[in-house]
Amino acid sequence: MVKQYQSNSKKNKLKYSVTVTLKKNVLDPQGKVVENTLKGKGMNNLKNIRQGKYFEIEVEEQDETKATQTINQMCEKLLVNLIIEDYKISKL
Amino acid sequence: MVKQYQSNSKKNKLKYSVTVTLKKNVLDPQGKVVENTLKGKGMNNLKNIRQGKYFEIEVEEQDETKATQTINQMCEKLLVNLIIEDYKISKL
Repeated sequence: MVKQYQSNSKKNKLKYSVTVTLKKNVLDPQGKVVENTLKGKGMNNLKNIRQGKYFEIEVEEQDETKATQTINQMCEKLLVNLIIEDYKISKL
Repeated sequence: MVKQYQSNSKKNKLKYSVTVTLKKNVLDPQGKVVENTLKGKGMNNLKNIRQGKYFEIEVEEQDETKATQTINQMCEKLLVNLIIEDYKISKL
């Protein structure tokens, strides 16, 4: 059993991505600036651009449910402002 | 033909997401700060966290190949610093 754990030690890490976006009705001034700049550079078919944050998180955990729980906690404790932002977790 | 174009007018918008991440060997001080803060909050099974940028871009284009080209141009002109960053485009 111990041996198996050791040989599986690489599998103890799980990697997730988290994307944090502003809620639909929240103004995104940073995205607006990027939009205007790109239009100024001649990108006329640009319709809309919104900027968010992106995290790649590795956790030392074997159980996917537990890992997702941990990542949820991280988001709620620090990474995401739940009043104005939404987040999405995906397995990498 | 014209009629069909009009009835498909909603399909003229294509939406993509772009994630921009620092290249593997580039130091990520911002991610390090987040990592230390999370560990200070008791997240001991956190192994590694890296921060990137995220964009949601809508373009007025029907052709997916052209749309992807446009988005590539945007990335290279403004959104991504190709010396230290990688980017990935996905259809939403």
